[in-house]
Amino acid sequence: MHFEEMWAALAPVGRSTSSGGYFRQPWTSAESELRAWFAEEATRRALRLETDALGNTVAWWDSAGGPGQSDAVLTGSHLDSVLDGGAYDGPLGVVSALAAVDLLRERGVVPARPLGVGVFVEEEGSRFGLACLGSRLAAGTVAWDDVAGLRDRDGVALGDVVDGTAGSTLLDGVGCFVELHVEQGRDLVDRGAAVGVGSGIWPHGRYRFDFTGEANHAGTTRMEDRRDPMLSYAMTALAANKRARLGDARATFGRVAVEPNGTNAVPSRVTGWLDARADTEQALGALVDAVVRQAQDRAGRDGTTLEVTPESVSGLVSFDADLAQRLAADHAEGDWPVIPTAAGHDAGVLAAAGVPTAMLFVRNPTGVSHSPDEHADTADCLVGVSALADSLERLLA
Amino acid sequence: MHFEEMWAALAPVGRSTSSGGYFRQPWTSAESELRAWFAEEATRRALRLETDALGNTVAWWDSAGGPGQSDAVLTGSHLDSVLDGGAYDGPLGVVSALAAVDLLRERGVVPARPLGVGVFVEEEGSRFGLACLGSRLAAGTVAWDDVAGLRDRDGVALGDVVDGTAGSTLLDGVGCFVELHVEQGRDLVDRGAAVGVGSGIWPHGRYRFDFTGEANHAGTTRMEDRRDPMLSYAMTALAANKRARLGDARATFGRVAVEPNGTNAVPSRVTGWLDARADTEQALGALVDAVVRQAQDRAGRDGTTLEVTPESVSGLVSFDADLAQRLAADHAEGDWPVIPTAAGHDAGVLAAAGVPTAMLFVRNPTGVSHSPDEHADTADCLVGVSALADSLERLLA
Repeated sequence: MHFEEMWAALAPVGRSTSSGGYFRQPWTSAESELRAWFAEEATRRALRLETDALGNTVAWWDSAGGPGQSDAVLTGSHLDSVLDGGAYDGPLGVVSALAAVDLLRERGVVPARPLGVGVFVEEEGSRFGLACLGSRLAAGTVAWDDVAGLRDRDGVALGDVVDGTAGSTLLDGVGCFVELHVEQGRDLVDRGAAVGVGSGIWPHGRYRFDFTGEANHAGTTRMEDRRDPMLSYAMTALAANKRARLGDARATFGRVAVEPNGTNAVPSRVTGWLDARADTEQALGALVDAVVRQAQDRAGRDGTTLEVTPESVSGLVSFDADLAQRLAADHAEGDWPVIPTAAGHDAGVLAAAGVPTAMLFVRNPTGVSHSPDEHADTADCLVGVSALADSLERLLA
Repeated sequence: MHFEEMWAALAPVGRSTSSGGYFRQPWTSAESELRAWFAEEATRRALRLETDALGNTVAWWDSAGGPGQSDAVLTGSHLDSVLDGGAYDGPLGVVSALAAVDLLRERGVVPARPLGVGVFVEEEGSRFGLACLGSRLAAGTVAWDDVAGLRDRDGVALGDVVDGTAGSTLLDGVGCFVELHVEQGRDLVDRGAAVGVGSGIWPHGRYRFDFTGEANHAGTTRMEDRRDPMLSYAMTALAANKRARLGDARATFGRVAVEPNGTNAVPSRVTGWLDARADTEQALGALVDAVVRQAQDRAGRDGTTLEVTPESVSGLVSFDADLAQRLAADHAEGDWPVIPTAAGHDAGVLAAAGVPTAMLFVRNPTGVSHSPDEHADTADCLVGVSALADSLERLLA
């Protein structure tokens, strides 16, 4: 089966020999290798490659009428990973899309509309901090001038890595988008289904908390003379967790930067990034407000100052309900379940930009994601390929 | 005055243009420049340079009998800094020692015993994590084979940077050591004195806390399904602070490392370094035990695991009481105050190794240290030079 061969080819790319996790940051050698692999697979299938200034790529199966793209069906996902991430988040959607093309051809399908397999860059925001950077630029929901100055952890600007000034026409003529993705929770496990259809994406955001205090000697400075931002940060991380538990939401401080970060120095500055999500925009706002309020209170007691910067905030995304229904209904095994997700996706960006969009999820036995332990059984992945092919066939008809 | 010229020459070396702080890590270009400067100043004074395999250096003013070192008097300090540190911690003792040599010569002193101005390497432990590395090796209180494998943050081993196998005979024949240092607290401010003599150094240690949990997606993983080591770490940092306040001790988490340190990932591991100090070894042990116990409890509740590794622990150092008395007594302005310190010093290492040792402290108006704001007034520094010259004159007689 084509899926398994492709999956095996990707397995070693960007993999850490120590953790077993993946480091596939955009515009690094691992990601370049994945792009080269994708171009090769597209060429092998006689798909026509189209790439925009940023590096977003679509491999087109043109319809009988030639390379006109009016009312085209787009599928695909991304190939980049978080730092030390899993194999499935992103690549499963790309590999399944290519395998679905094979399956459609085996079934003798001749597309009445063009079908594209897309790869969006920097979906995770692991390098420049803005998730779904590629799809946002392609959809026109952010402007190149507003992001060209974003810097990675080494201080390199996005604009020095890639020149996005020419913009993107990749999505011109795209009539709908379907993204297949490994599930990042356990709804499908609970429902006993290998695949499901997405109803929407929770509102979510990233907020930078800069706590500033005063560097000092860790030995000689009396406790009462300190202005230690580590304490303000620590209390905020605990408060965010507690608020999220109480509100049935999600709040995480998973990234921290400390200055000067020396064992025998009280820090001058601690920066923490809050990732927050909730089922409504109101609940998200209340969660973040409560965390900021507690952080401010504690900073006041510690003699530190706090600045909060929202780095990216995404509202509630509801996928096209008719489209979801059309894909989920009337299968041999009955209807597929329709489930929400708390994870951001390129599909959410395209949906927010007005493209009728749907998502398919493939069961993840543990629900673990953004981790080397992320997993989906091969049998479920193959059901996913078949489900994606079925969905595309309905849309291409 | 020689002191001020030398001080001005050092001011720009290794200084950050953004924070104004100093980055003078051992075996970096900034520190090499400082060594070259020291060699030049020694040569200018016709002092004989002696360097050991590690890079510890003594500039000798030989006595009339030639380069025999029996019963020699050693002074000096270090030139390296913490990350983003101040100008005074270390260099003040070296510059003051050279200026004191000038002053003794102006006074017509002809040393009956050799006088050495020493510079010890890696006093702060800012690069390889073990404070007073140079003096410990010179004094023979650690063995080269036990430290050659220490690695800096870039993974470079000490043994790849310098070859210490040949050991050190620098301290052979040294009869006593006097280190002048900027005060890192405010005892001298409270006592209204420009200089004071040290009574001893609090017991202190560095302990690495490795909290291990499970990496996961920050959006889709339910709060109750997480094993988040950031929470265990945060609670431990707060607990350490509280324990130190209650026990009139010092406890600081100033350095943290997070894996994978991504905004949208629950961390798999958080490592924090505890710097702890107290006035007795019993109090230090009780403080660290209490923090470890609270950390273990919290880790149990978070589903994370904790490993604690003491990286360096130093017992109580009492300086030679007779020597301190001899230096402090009978000055024109009366006796100098005798004060303790909670900071580790090369003087503490030599004292623990059996060398009769004294410290002189110079007043620090804010008490701030290990920070760009560290300061001593020039007038006080000049009193320090004179006090050091007086002390050396008494010892050389």
